[in-house]
Parts: sequence; C-alpha cells; structure tokens
Amino acid sequence: MTQAIANQTKTNATFRALKCKECGAEYELQAMHVCEYCFGPLEVAYDYSALRDTVTRESIQKGPHSIWRYRPFLPVATDNPIDVGTGLTPLVRANRLARRLGLKKLYIKNDAVNMPTLSFKDRVVSVALTRARELGFTTVSCASTGNLANSTAAIAAHAGLDCCVFIPADLEAGKVLGTLIYSPTVMAVQGNYDQVNRLCSEVANTYGWGFVNINLRPYYSEGSKTLGYEVAEQLGWELPDHVVAPLASGSLFTKIYKGFQEFTEVGLVEGKHVRFSGAQADGCSPIAQAYRDGKDFIKPVKPSTIAKSIAIGNPADGVYALDIARKTNGNIESVSDPEIIEGIKLLAETEGIFTETAGGTTIAVLKKLVEAGKIDPEETTVAYITGNGLKTQEAVQGYAGEPLTIEPKLDSFERALERSRTLERLDWQQVLV
Amino acid sequence: MTQAIANQTKTNATFRALKCKECGAEYELQAMHVCEYCFGPLEVAYDYSALRDTVTRESIQKGPHSIWRYRPFLPVATDNPIDVGTGLTPLVRANRLARRLGLKKLYIKNDAVNMPTLSFKDRVVSVALTRARELGFTTVSCASTGNLANSTAAIAAHAGLDCCVFIPADLEAGKVLGTLIYSPTVMAVQGNYDQVNRLCSEVANTYGWGFVNINLRPYYSEGSKTLGYEVAEQLGWELPDHVVAPLASGSLFTKIYKGFQEFTEVGLVEGKHVRFSGAQADGCSPIAQAYRDGKDFIKPVKPSTIAKSIAIGNPADGVYALDIARKTNGNIESVSDPEIIEGIKLLAETEGIFTETAGGTTIAVLKKLVEAGKIDPEETTVAYITGNGLKTQEAVQGYAGEPLTIEPKLDSFERALERSRTLERLDWQQVLV
Ligand SMILES: [Zn+2]
Ligand SMILES: [Zn+2]
Repeated sequence: MTQAIANQTKTNATFRALKCKECGAEYELQAMHVCEYCFGPLEVAYDYSALRDTVTRESIQKGPHSIWRYRPFLPVATDNPIDVGTGLTPLVRANRLARRLGLKKLYIKNDAVNMPTLSFKDRVVSVALTRARELGFTTVSCASTGNLANSTAAIAAHAGLDCCVFIPADLEAGKVLGTLIYSPTVMAVQGNYDQVNRLCSEVANTYGWGFVNINLRPYYSEGSKTLGYEVAEQLGWELPDHVVAPLASGSLFTKIYKGFQEFTEVGLVEGKHVRFSGAQADGCSPIAQAYRDGKDFIKPVKPSTIAKSIAIGNPADGVYALDIARKTNGNIESVSDPEIIEGIKLLAETEGIFTETAGGTTIAVLKKLVEAGKIDPEETTVAYITGNGLKTQEAVQGYAGEPLTIEPKLDSFERALERSRTLERLDWQQVLV
Repeated sequence: MTQAIANQTKTNATFRALKCKECGAEYELQAMHVCEYCFGPLEVAYDYSALRDTVTRESIQKGPHSIWRYRPFLPVATDNPIDVGTGLTPLVRANRLARRLGLKKLYIKNDAVNMPTLSFKDRVVSVALTRARELGFTTVSCASTGNLANSTAAIAAHAGLDCCVFIPADLEAGKVLGTLIYSPTVMAVQGNYDQVNRLCSEVANTYGWGFVNINLRPYYSEGSKTLGYEVAEQLGWELPDHVVAPLASGSLFTKIYKGFQEFTEVGLVEGKHVRFSGAQADGCSPIAQAYRDGKDFIKPVKPSTIAKSIAIGNPADGVYALDIARKTNGNIESVSDPEIIEGIKLLAETEGIFTETAGGTTIAVLKKLVEAGKIDPEETTVAYITGNGLKTQEAVQGYAGEPLTIEPKLDSFERALERSRTLERLDWQQVLV
C-alpha cells in the first residue's frame, strides 16, 4: 500500500494517506470515504513537517490569487489545478453592522461573491474536480441542496468533465436554472436532501462516477479549510477571537477549525484560542438541539425551513461540530424563518451584501448571540457568509418593499418623494410612541 | 480657478481638471458633466508626466487586490477610497469556447463575478461614490437599466450614504429585488431608459444630489478604464490584439480604449494596435446601424430587446465608440434575441460562466465575427462579460431545459438516465442524417 501511495502523490504532494477520524486506520489515496473497519469518516492526512519546512507567508503570497495559493495544504498532486479564480473573497470590515449590533471589530467573510457560482461550494468543488481528474474520473456528480449543483455543473463545464447532479425537486428556481444553464444531466428527486443523499450513495456504489460529496468527500471537504487560511492571511497572519458560521452537514465548521489548527501547527500564525459558534435554522436544527440538550449525539430531523441550502436533517459531521463548539467555549444557536429574513435585510442595508438564507441565518444568530452577551464586544469576530441572495429570491420577495411607481415627469417624482418621506416620518413617530 | 483645483486635488492627486472632449475648455474638479461653451461631454484630465515618474508595475502590484491598485489613474484624491473588493475579476483562458469557435487564444474577462453586485458597474460606482463623498454629497442617485441601481444601492449602503435610484418600471425581477434589498428609495418610472435619464437630468438640476451617471459622470465613467488596465496586467503587461465588448451608452468601450492608451503613454506596456469590436442587440442597435450605414452620427431608436441592460436608444458616447471601432479596424455587429440566448448557453456550457443578456450579446457577436472572418484565429482576443445571469433569469427560463424528475429510488434513476441517453442518441442521429 505504501508504494501505491508514493506513486500517486508524486514529488510535490504533501498529503500522504486517507485516515479514519475514529479508529485511525490508514488507506491509500483513492476515491473512498468510509472506514472499512469502523465505518468512521475518512480524512486526508498530511506531512506537516514537510509543510513546515517548505511553506512560508511569502511563498503563499507569491501564489495565485485564488485558493490555489494554499495548494500544499490541499489534497491534489498536480501543479495545474482547475483554477477559475475561486477564493480570496473579501474580508469586509463591517463597521456599520458592528455599530448596529454593538460590536467593535466585526468582519464579514463574503463568499456571496465567490467565483464562479457565488457560494463557498466553489472552493470544495474546485478541489474535488481537480482530484477527480487526477484519479481518472470522466463523469462527476453530487447530491446537492442547490449551491453544490451550481458549482459542480459550472466547474465541470469549464474542465470538460461529464456531469450529473441530484437535487431535491422543490428547490428554489434560481438554483435550478443556475444548474441547468451549464447543460449537465439534472435529476430532480421527489424527496428531501437526506433522501437524495441516500440515493446518491447507491448510485456511487453502482456507477464509476466521482461524487464530490460521497466517494470524493475526503478531498472535497478539505477545500473548506481555505476559508480558515484566508481569514488568517487577510487579518495580517493572525487568527480572530470568535467565528460564527452556518451549520449544514457540519463539515464547513470543522474545516475552518482544521485550517486554523494547521496554520498554527506549521508556524504561519501564532496559536490562539478561537471560539467557534454555529448557526442553524429552527426548522432544521438537530445540532443546535443536541447542543442545548447537552447530548453528544445528533437526533435526525425532517427539515422545514426557508434556509434550504443548510437544511440537512442528518448532518454527517454534526458531532464533530458539536465537539468544536463546546471545547472552544462557543455556542450553537438557531433562529426562526422571519429572523432569517431580517438577517438578510440587516446585512444588505448596513453593508451592501445580499446573501441567501444561509447567510441570513448566520447574521440572525450573530445578533442573537450578541444580545445574549455570548459574544464580547471587544472580540475580533468573523461571520461567514456562504452564498448569494440572487439564488433564493423567493425567500425575501414580498419582504423587501416595493418601488414607488411614477410617470417620467418631475412633478410625479416629487409627489412620490413627498409620500415616501411622510411614510418615513410616520414610521419614526411610531418608534417614538 | 487654478487655485481651486490645486486645493481640491491635494498632494497625491494626479488628476488636474475637467476638460471638454469637443472644444478642450477646462473646468475645475466639481460635479458637472457638460461643457458650458459647446455642450460637449467633460472628461477628467491627468498629469501623465507625473504618472510616468511615479507609477511602476511593481507599485501597482503592491496595491490592494481591487481597482484601487490603479488609484493614481482614477479621479479621487483620498488614500481611503470605498473598497469593497471591486475589480481584478478573473481573465479566464477560454480554451473550450475557443475550440468551439475556431480561435486559438481567447480570454473571457469575467465581470459576472465582480464584487459586490456582479456587474462591471461596481467599478464605476466605487469611483463615483468615493468622489461624491470627497465633493460633500450625502445623497447619491442614478438613472439605471438595473445593474447600476444594484451597485449604487449596495455600495451606498456600505458607505452609509443616502440613496435614491431611478429604473424603468418593466425591469427584470432580479434587478428590482437586487436593489430593494439594500433599502434605498426606488423610483420605478413608467417609460424606457431614455425617459428615465431625461427625468433624472431634471432632478439633478433641482436637488443637490450626486447622480453617478449625470453630474458625476466624468468621474464615474473613468472607473471603466480599470477593465483595460486589468486585462493588460493579467496578460503579463501586454495588450491583446482584439477586444469585443458590449455597447450601451458606448462609455465602457471608449474607456477600455483610454485605459490601453494611458498604460502605453506612461510606459507600463508597449504600444500596440488593438482592434475594438462592439456588440449590440438587434432590438437596440443605433451604433451598429450607423456603423453599417457609414454614418458618423447616431440616429436614436426605441429599444425592444431582452438585452435590457444595454438597451440605450440614445447612446451618449455612441459617436466616440463608432470612431474607435473604425480607426482600430474593428467592427460593430448586432444579433437577434434568440442568438443572445444561444450566446448565454454557449458560454455556460463551454466555460461554466453564467452571464446575463449583455454577455450573451457579446458572445453571439464574437461568434458572428469569427464566422464572417472578421477575427483572425491567431489574434489574442478578449471578450468582456459585464454582468451575471442570475439577474436576468426570465431571459433564459424555458430555454435551458428541465430537470428529470425521479423518485428517490435507484430504478427510477436508472430509467431516467436511460431515457436521457436515448434522447441524446436521437439528437446525435439527427445530426448525422
Ligand atoms: Zn475506522
Ligand atoms: Zn466644449
């Protein structure tokens, strides 16, 4: 087995095996995601002493302006990865939102403008498809709540890979069209995400396809580490005090944590105790429920929320996320659908960032944690915004107000302006009463 | 007047006056856009010898990863511009699209993922609002076909400026919601863009507001030069042989040209003859019509096309665009609405880039020019994609196919897969017949 690994990883690869998160058994670097001994999830293992010897802040900064500047920390051997500009999204100093909430140093990591398909999924898919190509797959696939289908279809199109995606049949129109446009095969499954996922596991066992979040999952999920690396680099090679991120499968959350750990391990940043807080929607909050109940296992739920992109009722990495929130002295909170809509609007009107329902969930939980005194105003806090609002327009349609319709004449404009100012004054008087 | 200019431009400013494009009269750096003598448009004039002495490739590369790395070439005096990560969008080497068209070196400049609102307008608005703040405006405004309203509302929200935008009442839903979400005042005018624009000119004369594309237009339009600078830098400090860009008012086109001229003038790139070709929709093609007719004036038209973001019937900079296309040995072409939809699909399925109707127009014109032998396969060609497809979903809804609806069972999946493969074979057989 050692020989096979050596052959596959080539000279410049720093990843050396797949390793079971539960029992530690090691496997060669193939397309596989579950331990044969204990059924635990497999994770990519690296040679950190080699990384420590070769990677510096300067070598990273000289790299491409994308996630691939962190290539030595990612599980691909090629020097020529699929790079469509993914990553290095803005870390926005959110002063206006901070003032509104009563925080002093708040940042938004804005993956609503990630490339090419406007969600953090472009990170994991870029890594998964690069690895899929290395492993010889010609057809790639995924089980998706929407964003992942967009990303897999788009990046497969760019790379010239055949693509078949699986989505729940009741998805938002923008996410369906935003997949179809790239001409993959799209299977709309009459069931929720967990049923889609189970079907895909069967297909993965039968067909020789590379499912980015099933048999390629160990490689795929490593892409989320870049959300940790980038924040560290963008803060001037320092870690924040507190992060707030959405919880779907829990994978994103655990990989941001892993990213911080790795940068500390190889000496790129100084070690720091970072608090990790997670956000869920009330209508699908199995991890928040376990957190509140003090349980260390997750009871699956049937999702019912507008936050469809994070509506995973049986979260694969839920227990690991739970563990991280607890050991870092963070929190896991959930919010209602109306609070999610308010979160979307709050971020838009204070920072000019239009996020989808997952981002609204994160902002609403951020607000709730601040109000409960669970985030210290002095902490440097980073909230992760993971997708774009243009994909879930249904969620806010009807809650964002209406334009004032006027004729193309100055007096028509002036009457409308007067009306709107009167309404604003009335709003204001109601506040005062 | 000289003293006033000196006061306003401060120490590190390299822009020195507003200058009439027609008669050359100079004005101080205020909010004004039309020459008082000849009614010609005003443009910002720079001190190029100062630029040549101070700006180097290295000084630019050390700057921020946004349009503000080119700040000395932009008309703002502050060292602290409004920077939300706008610009430095990917220049994608489009090998799959190139093969399909029969070109050898094709690049897509992808402003469909520009930050924060996914169109090139974020460039011009970032510059205009930074300048508006310098000039003391507290309310900003615009006349918009959609993208500009999105951008003005979002960046004004981030900067904490009051905002009132004017749009035609029949705009795409995504563009209306993508403005409302930031909570500006939105005036939906029952008329086409040219009527909206005329109304806004009246409002600009009456209210003390900064209209980014009216009284601030000389500053605003300079932001588009960054689409020239970035391509030059991303090609390794070289100019391309041929560019294809959409024509709305004509401003974008002329400013890319100005960007290339300036970089040559100050010695950042070697001079080169670059051919400029413009793209319009048949349903609003006054510039293409003048080009075909050999006229040097533009006859206004009433727009009727799905490409609403470029549907300007009376283009302010049309004659300058016409002149550039002619003197560079380029072309101006127009395409039908069905060709625009095909252009959107072609770009998506070959490169994984989902653009709006303006981008579909550019790709369709690119295809038409190649087929007519008007682009040499050996030329290094750059096509400018200026906005994101998620904002104009109506345009392709119904043309992108449908998902295959299945039950969450393996046999249901297998039957659907078999059906889709049979359909593909039938398509293929029809091609062979
Ligand atoms: Zn195991
Ligand atoms: Zn003049």
